[in-house]
Formats: sequence, structure tokens, C-alpha cells
Amino acid sequence: MKSFSSQVIFSNSLPSSKELGDEVVLVFDKALEQYSFFKAWAQKFKAKYPVVAGEELKDLKKFPLHVQNIAQIAQNFSTKKMTIVAVGGGSVGDFAGFIASVYKRGVKLIHIPSTWLAAIDSAHGGKTALNLDGIKNQVGSFYPAEKIYLIKKLLLQQPEIRAHEAYSEIYKAALLQGGLFWNSFSKCSPSSADLWNHLAFAINFKNNIVKKDPFETKGIRHILNFGHTMGHVFETIFKIPHGVAVNYGICFALRWSMFRGYLTQAKAKQVFMAEASTYLLDPVLNGLLGSKYFSDFQKILGADKKKIDKKHIRFVFLSAPGKYRIESVTVNDILAEVKRQSQYADI
Amino acid sequence: MKSFSSQVIFSNSLPSSKELGDEVVLVFDKALEQYSFFKAWAQKFKAKYPVVAGEELKDLKKFPLHVQNIAQIAQNFSTKKMTIVAVGGGSVGDFAGFIASVYKRGVKLIHIPSTWLAAIDSAHGGKTALNLDGIKNQVGSFYPAEKIYLIKKLLLQQPEIRAHEAYSEIYKAALLQGGLFWNSFSKCSPSSADLWNHLAFAINFKNNIVKKDPFETKGIRHILNFGHTMGHVFETIFKIPHGVAVNYGICFALRWSMFRGYLTQAKAKQVFMAEASTYLLDPVLNGLLGSKYFSDFQKILGADKKKIDKKHIRFVFLSAPGKYRIESVTVNDILAEVKRQSQYADI
Repeated sequence: MKSFSSQVIFSNSLPSSKELGDEVVLVFDKALEQYSFFKAWAQKFKAKYPVVAGEELKDLKKFPLHVQNIAQIAQNFSTKKMTIVAVGGGSVGDFAGFIASVYKRGVKLIHIPSTWLAAIDSAHGGKTALNLDGIKNQVGSFYPAEKIYLIKKLLLQQPEIRAHEAYSEIYKAALLQGGLFWNSFSKCSPSSADLWNHLAFAINFKNNIVKKDPFETKGIRHILNFGHTMGHVFETIFKIPHGVAVNYGICFALRWSMFRGYLTQAKAKQVFMAEASTYLLDPVLNGLLGSKYFSDFQKILGADKKKIDKKHIRFVFLSAPGKYRIESVTVNDILAEVKRQSQYADI
Repeated sequence: MKSFSSQVIFSNSLPSSKELGDEVVLVFDKALEQYSFFKAWAQKFKAKYPVVAGEELKDLKKFPLHVQNIAQIAQNFSTKKMTIVAVGGGSVGDFAGFIASVYKRGVKLIHIPSTWLAAIDSAHGGKTALNLDGIKNQVGSFYPAEKIYLIKKLLLQQPEIRAHEAYSEIYKAALLQGGLFWNSFSKCSPSSADLWNHLAFAINFKNNIVKKDPFETKGIRHILNFGHTMGHVFETIFKIPHGVAVNYGICFALRWSMFRGYLTQAKAKQVFMAEASTYLLDPVLNGLLGSKYFSDFQKILGADKKKIDKKHIRFVFLSAPGKYRIESVTVNDILAEVKRQSQYADI
């Protein structure tokens, strides 16, 4: 880990193998081979490590075998020149990033995210991770990629439903950033085209925060958790995609911000009336806040790894687009708010 | 990894458990329990992880299990407060340091080296490591300890033979540093007392170099490799302790420095006539340079992980105490010098 500024490159098509380095190990999501342009491109690399994307890939138990395989593939590579190029979604990036961070005490890393969530979020900021006994991200490192390529052709291969899922992360960034970003994105829909057009905004937003708190020691990065506290709970209980769960989580956080008076009626109107907000998912209407889940909520929130201490969790509230506040709340505070929201949706 | 300056604390006895932190996992070399003062001290810690020291401990295949065990022990600890305290020699420090660097993306780390080699060298500079299929340090990180305690009572428990083995590392540092350090150490013997008295010199020397090149990207740290190129070869072939092997390696490097004219006769005399130099081990007299080992030398040097490229190795030569030069040499250059030295010991 040398510096926290990754070079971000926007391009219509995949970079030449030469541009990526002399001694490249291509770690990529096998599923991408369904696209002939990708398959043809990947064939240009001698050292390849196709993987099955998903949380299984991040299982710590499999890590020694993966390292062994990659060491085998890279046996003639010099430590200084070797570059791991990760092409895939979040799991592939987390996995390959972690290996790059520890193999020979760190080799070069390049991310080419193939999913919206990775392109917007996980490829940036340098977090890598593996899972321990099914618990996510218990092992990992801070290891930013030297370069991150955002490839329009690759990202647009995804079905529109993926853009819909990823929309919440970019919506979150726009809300927290406010200004030009919110003004522009608030008029958008969760389409691939709108996501692509706002990618640079979202990445800039995240990078600016990461730069202030690269190792997550100052609590600044915590604002990126907006919508995620309850988002993670929904994701775990209902086994819904991360982006969908966060969408619900943002809605929950906005309503709580209103109830606490942080987000005034006037500001709330401004947020909820925006075109982009019509794509928010409602945890009340969709039955996610039912009392039968309360014990699950309690259990999962109790195990939240971002807790301050045994009782307290930092919760991110919004006061206006571009204005947020972090408050220390208890699990019981959250449960009380769940109960309140479940009884009447405010908007 | 936040900063490269570890706090170094010299003390006669072990620190109180309270001084080490609120949520400590004590990772320690089981063998230390033979000392009653250590056993009594270790009993004060609730979360303990005794390990069998040695390269087996660093086996990547066992890593997932170790993490699982430590996660179990530390299940109620908060990520921010948790501190791994490593008490042991190099293998324990490498192992515990690596776990600290990646568990929850990094928890606090404190080293309490129990061997001279760890106290002089491996506990400092932030390198952590695991082994892959018996190949040393293929996986690791740069993760300096927050604090490093040098405990006289603990270090002096070691038999004098350990001080003898460790002497080469401090002799190396004194030669490379020159000045006061060399002036003082050159009059010493490889005794525990002399090692203890020069520990601060040796640590300062290493830290100053590490600070200039924390991630080993600038080649500056490479000078720490003085005596180690052939040292590693001897260690591998003859299965002798690292410190003994490096001792032979230094002797080899000094003779080559003379032959190349870098170390003039006058300067050489100054070095070889010093009292400390009488403890140098001679690879020629002890039969380590015999022609029957040449193919082994070739093989091991060919696999040296610090090679510049397929053919070249950086070799550290000495011009005078405090003056060194790094030259790019080939494996064949080294073999030719082995041949030359094996035919007549110059001194």
C-alpha cells in the first residue's frame, strides 16, 4: 500500500493487454466469458485465473489454495513487475485485491469492475476482504488499486435490473454530496445510461471521503454507511441483493431523519419529490418491518461490526442534500424507530 | 498500517497487562512457559493463544484455522480496541504480525521479542510473513507494531549460544553504520551483555533505513541484505541457524569487497583486526565453499527472491565501516568468487 490515489480511467472498450503491464495475472469472473468480446480479450493473457464470483470465493478456508494456484501461474514473474488485474464484481475485487495486498507483501493491482456496484463503490477506496465462516469481511486489508478502469462496453452488458439494484449507491452518494451531483442525479432514473453518466460524480465523492480517512480510523468514512445499517439487516434476513437492501435502508434512514427533525419538512419535500426518489423502495409497504422480524433485527444489529461499543451504533442521518450528521444510537433506539415506522408510513 | 514509527521501549521487566491495552490477545511461544516469571505474567491475560514457534507456525495452510481460533478468543473484543501482543522469536512475530495486519483489516500490534534476532532485527521494520509450501515469506504485509518492548529479563533468559548466533546481525549493523556504533561494538564480544548494550544502536540503524524505504520499493532497504545473499544459501544447504549462516555470509562479502578493491587493505585491516571480527566464522576453513556444493549454490541463488531480473542479483559490498555500495552481479559472478575464495582464504 503506497498511496491512496488510484488512477481512474473511463473508456469505451477494454484496455490492451500491453497497457496493463508486462507480467499480468488476469483474475476474472468466469461468467464474463459468455461475452465474445471479453473472451477474445482474455485470451490475449498468458496467465489467467478464472473464478466463480460470489461470497464462496471469499471463503478464508480456500485462500491458501488460491494463493498456491496463483503462485503456480506466476512462478516466473518478478515481484516488482507482477500485476494482478481483477475483472469482475465486488467479490472478485475483494478477493483479488486481498491476494494482491499480501502476495509477496504486495504486488500491483488493477481493478476493472464489471458490475455497477463495483464500478460505483467497491472497486474504490482500497478495501479488500475475505470471509470467516460465512461472516463477511472479517479478514482484509486497505490496498487501493493503482488503476481502476471503468469500461462502458463491459458495464453496459449487464441487464437493466443490475442498474436498478446499483442505483441506491449512487443515489446515496448524490444525497450526501448534494450540490451539482444531487441536482443532476435527482432528475434521473435507475437506468444504465444515467448510472454511466454519474459514475465520475460518485467516484469523486467517495474518493474525497476516503482520502480524509484512508484507514477508517477517524470515523469520516462512516458516512458512507448511510442507508447501510438497516440495509445490511434487510440483506441478511430477506436474502435480497445488496443494492435493493440499501435502497430500503435509505428510505428508513430518511424517515428517521424526518422524525428526529433533522430533515425539515421543506427539505424532505425537496428530497422525496425528486424524480430519482420515486425509485426508492419502501420497507413498510413491502412488509420488511413486520414485528415477526424484530428478534432477527435485534440479533443482527447486536452483531453489527461497526458498533462503537456493546450498545451503541453510529447511525447516519440526513439534514439536507449535502448535509448529514452521525449520531450514536442504541439497538433499542433503532428497534423503537422500526416499530414507529411499521405503524405508519409518513410519506 | 498507519505510520512507520514504532515506539521502542527498553525495560528490565515485562509490562503490566494493563499497560498493553484493554482488549489484548496474547500470542506467545509456548516454550516461554518454562520460565516461572513469564508463566505468572501470562496468566494475567484472559485471552491467550500459545503457539509452537518455528516455520511450521507460518504455514499458509494453517492460517485459516489460526484466524478462526483467534476470532473465537476475541469474539467480544471491539475492532478498534483489540491489540495482538506477540511474545516470541521471529516466527511468532511474523505470524502474529500478519494476523494483526489483516484481522478485521488491521488491529493494534505490540511486539515483545524473546530472542536476540527478533529484538535486533525482525520485530522492527514492519515486515510480517507466512510461508507457502515451505517457501519462506511468500505472503505477508508491511505492518509495523505500535510498540516494541525490549525486556532485559526476557532476553537474558536465552543461553549465551543464542547471543553468539545473533551477533552477526548486530555486527552487520555496526559495520554498515560505522561511526560511534562501530567504534563501540568493534571492541565487543558476542555476549548477551554486549548485545543488550548495543541494542538501541542497532534498532536506530534499522529504523533509519526503513523510514527511507518503508515498502521496499526504493532499493534502500536492500543494504540490510549485507552478508545475507550467501548467508541464505548457507542456511538452506547446511541447515545452520540464520545468525550463523549470516556470519559466514558477512565474511564472504568482506573478502569479495577486498578482492574488488572496494575495501582497501588499510580499511580491511581496520575491520579484521577489531576484536569483534575475531568472532567472524570462516566459510573456507569450515568447508562451506567446497566444489561439491556448487550446483546447490547455483540453484539457490537462481531462486533468490531479491533478484533484479532472471540473471542479476544486488550484492552489498563494504568500502569501510559506514560505507557500502550495492552492485548488480550475476549468479555466475558469485560462483566465480566462491571458487576464488575456496582456493585460498585471503586472511
